Amino acid sequence: MKQGNRHDLPAEPDYILISKALEVVSGKWRLYLILQLGEETRRYSQLAEMLPSISEKVLAGELKALVVLGVIDRKVYAEIPPRVEYTLTSKGRLALPILRLLQEIGRIFN
Amino acid sequence: MKQGNRHDLPAEPDYILISKALEVVSGKWRLYLILQLGEETRRYSQLAEMLPSISEKVLAGELKALVVLGVIDRKVYAEIPPRVEYTLTSKGRLALPILRLLQEIGRIFN
Repeated sequence: MKQGNRHDLPAEPDYILISKALEVVSGKWRLYLILQLGEETRRYSQLAEMLPSISEKVLAGELKALVVLGVIDRKVYAEIPPRVEYTLTSKGRLALPILRLLQEIGRIFN
Repeated sequence: MKQGNRHDLPAEPDYILISKALEVVSGKWRLYLILQLGEETRRYSQLAEMLPSISEKVLAGELKALVVLGVIDRKVYAEIPPRVEYTLTSKGRLALPILRLLQEIGRIFN
């Protein structure tokens, strides 16, 4: 996956890139979850507290989807009870400034 | 709607701003449609040609939604047949650089 700089983004809108970007941000909670995680390492319980109106099932599902997409890492520590921690992957951290910037779109049209 | 600079985006992720931003970009075609329009003025027929796999009904619906959101302007010229043209609003043009940048998210995770 070639790391281009932002100036050489395709002149013509690229439907594949757009669809992949939307996979990362779309849905009621996904972008909010990424931004709440930010540069921190968070436990499942901490994330659940930060997103009080999200159901356990949806939170687990969104975290799983973000792991599959390569946005976040999931680490399980063999403790009793097991400790599960989430952090952004290096790709996730690379994307974070743009993901934060998306809120500017919300402000423009709010 | 206060026009802030990007440095004073909320420290904490703002769910309202995120939801509004997602309203502008989400959906199979919306972001692609905005980027295809870009800084140009396009007729409905031109947009339909640029998005060959989108149905007339969906294209009309997405254009209507983007007008309601304040992203694009729709001008009808009283000609026979009537000429209908779409352009980005000033808010749309303000958001365009960030919307284009979203493709970088697609590249990172592609």
